[in-house]
Amino acid sequence: MNKFLAASVSPALYATKANARIFTLSSTEHNIEVGNWKIDSTQLGIIDSFFSIEQKILHGGKQEGSKIIILTSPNGLTITLSPTRGMSIMNVTGQDIRFGWDSPVKEVVNPTFINLESRNGAGWLEGFNEMMVRCGFEWAGHPGIENGEMRTLHGKAGNTPASKVEIEISEIAPYEIKIRGLIKESTFKKADLQTVAEICYIPDTYSFTIHDRLTNHSDYPRDYQIMYHSNFSKPLLEKDAQFVAPIKEISPFNDYAHKGLQDWATYLEPTKDFDEMVFNIVPFAKNDGSTLAALHNKDGSKGVTIEFNIQELPYLTLWKNTDTEKQGYVTGIEPGTNYAYATSIEREQGRIRQIESEQTVHFKIKYSALMNKEAVDKAKKAVADIQGAQKTTFVHTPIAKE
Amino acid sequence: MNKFLAASVSPALYATKANARIFTLSSTEHNIEVGNWKIDSTQLGIIDSFFSIEQKILHGGKQEGSKIIILTSPNGLTITLSPTRGMSIMNVTGQDIRFGWDSPVKEVVNPTFINLESRNGAGWLEGFNEMMVRCGFEWAGHPGIENGEMRTLHGKAGNTPASKVEIEISEIAPYEIKIRGLIKESTFKKADLQTVAEICYIPDTYSFTIHDRLTNHSDYPRDYQIMYHSNFSKPLLEKDAQFVAPIKEISPFNDYAHKGLQDWATYLEPTKDFDEMVFNIVPFAKNDGSTLAALHNKDGSKGVTIEFNIQELPYLTLWKNTDTEKQGYVTGIEPGTNYAYATSIEREQGRIRQIESEQTVHFKIKYSALMNKEAVDKAKKAVADIQGAQKTTFVHTPIAKE
Amino acid sequence: MNKFLAASVSPALYATKANARIFTLSSTEHNIEVGNWKIDSTQLGIIDSFFSIEQKILHGGKQEGSKIIILTSPNGLTITLSPTRGMSIMNVTGQDIRFGWDSPVKEVVNPTFINLESRNGAGWLEGFNEMMVRCGFEWAGHPGIENGEMRTLHGKAGNTPASKVEIEISEIAPYEIKIRGLIKESTFKKADLQTVAEICYIPDTYSFTIHDRLTNHSDYPRDYQIMYHSNFSKPLLEKDAQFVAPIKEISPFNDYAHKGLQDWATYLEPTKDFDEMVFNIVPFAKNDGSTLAALHNKDGSKGVTIEFNIQELPYLTLWKNTDTEKQGYVTGIEPGTNYAYATSIEREQGRIRQIESEQTVHFKIKYSALMNKEAVDKAKKAVADIQGAQKTTFVHTPIAKE
Repeated sequence: MNKFLAASVSPALYATKANARIFTLSSTEHNIEVGNWKIDSTQLGIIDSFFSIEQKILHGGKQEGSKIIILTSPNGLTITLSPTRGMSIMNVTGQDIRFGWDSPVKEVVNPTFINLESRNGAGWLEGFNEMMVRCGFEWAGHPGIENGEMRTLHGKAGNTPASKVEIEISEIAPYEIKIRGLIKESTFKKADLQTVAEICYIPDTYSFTIHDRLTNHSDYPRDYQIMYHSNFSKPLLEKDAQFVAPIKEISPFNDYAHKGLQDWATYLEPTKDFDEMVFNIVPFAKNDGSTLAALHNKDGSKGVTIEFNIQELPYLTLWKNTDTEKQGYVTGIEPGTNYAYATSIEREQGRIRQIESEQTVHFKIKYSALMNKEAVDKAKKAVADIQGAQKTTFVHTPIAKE
Repeated sequence: MNKFLAASVSPALYATKANARIFTLSSTEHNIEVGNWKIDSTQLGIIDSFFSIEQKILHGGKQEGSKIIILTSPNGLTITLSPTRGMSIMNVTGQDIRFGWDSPVKEVVNPTFINLESRNGAGWLEGFNEMMVRCGFEWAGHPGIENGEMRTLHGKAGNTPASKVEIEISEIAPYEIKIRGLIKESTFKKADLQTVAEICYIPDTYSFTIHDRLTNHSDYPRDYQIMYHSNFSKPLLEKDAQFVAPIKEISPFNDYAHKGLQDWATYLEPTKDFDEMVFNIVPFAKNDGSTLAALHNKDGSKGVTIEFNIQELPYLTLWKNTDTEKQGYVTGIEPGTNYAYATSIEREQGRIRQIESEQTVHFKIKYSALMNKEAVDKAKKAVADIQGAQKTTFVHTPIAKE
Repeated sequence: MNKFLAASVSPALYATKANARIFTLSSTEHNIEVGNWKIDSTQLGIIDSFFSIEQKILHGGKQEGSKIIILTSPNGLTITLSPTRGMSIMNVTGQDIRFGWDSPVKEVVNPTFINLESRNGAGWLEGFNEMMVRCGFEWAGHPGIENGEMRTLHGKAGNTPASKVEIEISEIAPYEIKIRGLIKESTFKKADLQTVAEICYIPDTYSFTIHDRLTNHSDYPRDYQIMYHSNFSKPLLEKDAQFVAPIKEISPFNDYAHKGLQDWATYLEPTKDFDEMVFNIVPFAKNDGSTLAALHNKDGSKGVTIEFNIQELPYLTLWKNTDTEKQGYVTGIEPGTNYAYATSIEREQGRIRQIESEQTVHFKIKYSALMNKEAVDKAKKAVADIQGAQKTTFVHTPIAKE
């Protein structure tokens, strides 16, 4: 172990496993919270790559006490996530690319300041500014009452601080980094859904993978829902930017989206009074269930692919929020177990899944930055290959009314 | 004063009274918060006993910033309580005995993460894992609307951080220890109920006493309710474990409990789909009002008694939650001023008490660990002595419908 | 720069502008939070005045983590405000005068402990104890439902921690001090109202000015409301204390206030069961819109004036809460853009203002302590001069029913 290590990382619980080092930044079980913390590859004795991982405690306003973790890659990419906000990815930036968007909410809002029940169940909007936020797991989707209880917008995971935060760094090139947090939705009588929410990144690459493991620690089967609300704006989103995916069926979320069905796959410039249009998509996939969706800019020189598996995440919600820039010019590409309707509708239409006692379900999503035309073209070809000659069914009437 | 004292406890406000030392760990009035803190009997110059008291700040997840105080006795008993959670007793453990239970909620949840109004007024369940939590004092019982306002499940006291925390240690053997916190339920126009919530323990003994003093600081008489929600599981609770109390009248809380009236006093093993059965009890007492309830394991070798006075706490709620272990296998023995029905029902049936302006009402409850068969038998005899030849009335129909 | 300065204020972001020094105590943008901090005029090299400004972090109970800033003037006046509670002024004291009152809520409650939606939208009452709290800006007034969303009592500003806190001290006599905080009401889809809430004070004087700048950072025009809820008790409020203002029209807020219309401008001693009477006032003003309201004690030897401009704040609410002392013996003088009715009523009656995209609206209010009869008489004359021969219309029927 490098001699600097002991000094610089002493507050973190430190462990090793085969060819990897594990740093525990936070743990309710061991009462650990390292606070401000930083490590870089040099301190790990790595000389053929340079990366760093830093945890910062944020201050002021409604972000008082919020934590962020910043992973900096040798290629200039920076991934910022927040343990306080359910391991959400705040943004990914670098090299003229950006995953994420500009919300009017600028702070990394500490959930202690959020009342999810406020605004008729839409209090979630007071903290929403992430590049990727998990909508789940006890429930997801739009607010609504079920059994007398308010199912608040997009669930609680994104406003639940991680009960354990670990960083695992491989000691062998290419030094894969895993940052994982334990998100507990544990309520007496109601649920004990615990998710190990992990991001994996190999330094110097242009993609990262989310690998979540949801376990039902209750003795009873429980409902669950999850939507990976993945949000993009400039430089990927712009007038005539394009959404691409192999599609079996698409339907407008509501009457307003119905009006936008004709050119649903292309985007407008920031447009006053556009508000949002949402489309429900059933994707096609390869035989093994794997599929992808992509977004690219107008000239196809930059983009993002989101790879997932329809066995895990059979539905895809496309959220087009091309309103003005200050209003939040953004599109959401959201693979999920369901659509964004209120839980009662999702249940009625049979999209609520159950997880057995002690069962663990996995969700993997790979996000890749497409840095040039070649990469974009390759992604489009991958989509076309899956679609093949299969037709897309356009359902013109919304499948549900909220 | 022992020379180590000054150094080790300097952040605490320190005072003496006749034959006792008082340490102020927290005070809104004097802006004191000692954070992590520990003292032991050696530091107090005590050489014929060894005990310690420690305050710890907890970290991670939803327990970020929560405080616990751990009292360790020479006999191995450890009492853990939480100033952040209304001076609730988290658990009492040692010597093969345990008061408390295993909730799916594992963290000492900071009330900043709790929304009592969520889940239709049952947000309290997101933090419920205590051995003893005060349900009160502005209201208690099940959620319901009164005058347009939601009376949330079991009131606010258990999710109110103490405004003053003091530890008083007698300098004279047997060195009685008092840990008390001030719980303020002060809301403009509504209430100014302030409770000095105290636990008294004599090192090396197997019992402790709760002594609460509720004062109405308002100029108006106010309603109040209190139920001492005292919870036990293994090793006391098991198949054929027994509840014992001198009973004047018992009724099932609802239709489901009605089905369990026949063997209401014995317990099942962890039982799937059992959920909970609740019974309302009017206890008999001695002429001075003193009475007790007891729980013991199947072979009567271990148990607990809860001694209280029916002038202070005339009703007893028995909560049998012998569902599966992970669901929370637990029974609650809850002396109170009322039953657990919604406030509107309690009011209608005349069980809501009033406290005059500047009046102080006292509540004393003694919890004793019964460490062997002799102690259990003695408790059973005490119950039988109070019951004597008096009959128990079984009311078969629930007295109210929620 | 004084040599002590560097050491004592190093954690604060330090800047200068022409003839002034600026200290940043908190900033979400620069991730600054200085915590406990103090500066005095000596450290600034000022030798002909002595004042100090101190920030304190509060501890215990529901004020854990709350911040207050205390400005101490050479004349003995002390102004205390709270960045955590929306830059509210907690109180102003000194020299036998006091602005402020005694609420049953004694702590500077951290908004993390407040649920504004609780108590049917009146959760605000659990933290209310300020001398001046801003009711606004997204909404103000009494709770009510609009478009399915609860508009909670008096809005969110008073329970929003400042995102930036700056202290600006002029280096030129008389050393004007400005303390300002940025209050952000930013919610995706809903609002991006940002207010620079500033207090200006010149050491050794007996008055201070609030100067707020509300900017709509959204691309859409937005509704806003603001009431400056300014509260006074003893020694200004007492039996036969007097409210004075030039009044065009006055109406009782409700049927109960109607009963008090006859002697609406004088006060009772602390009076059991008085509860509160509220009056809606349209003030007269000078041609430039400037006007004032005043409160003075019985013998006219002490008082306060509140100067404002009806172009900014056209309405005045008088809140007479002369109930018992422990209940909160207090009167509120509240210049605003509206009355205290629920938003739906204010909208119906045309009192909700709109702010254009990127527009900034200013609000200035000057509070002056009247330290003797001469000052009180001068204030009364100023009121009489504005009223002149103009008549006051008494509307006897409440203009709205809640």
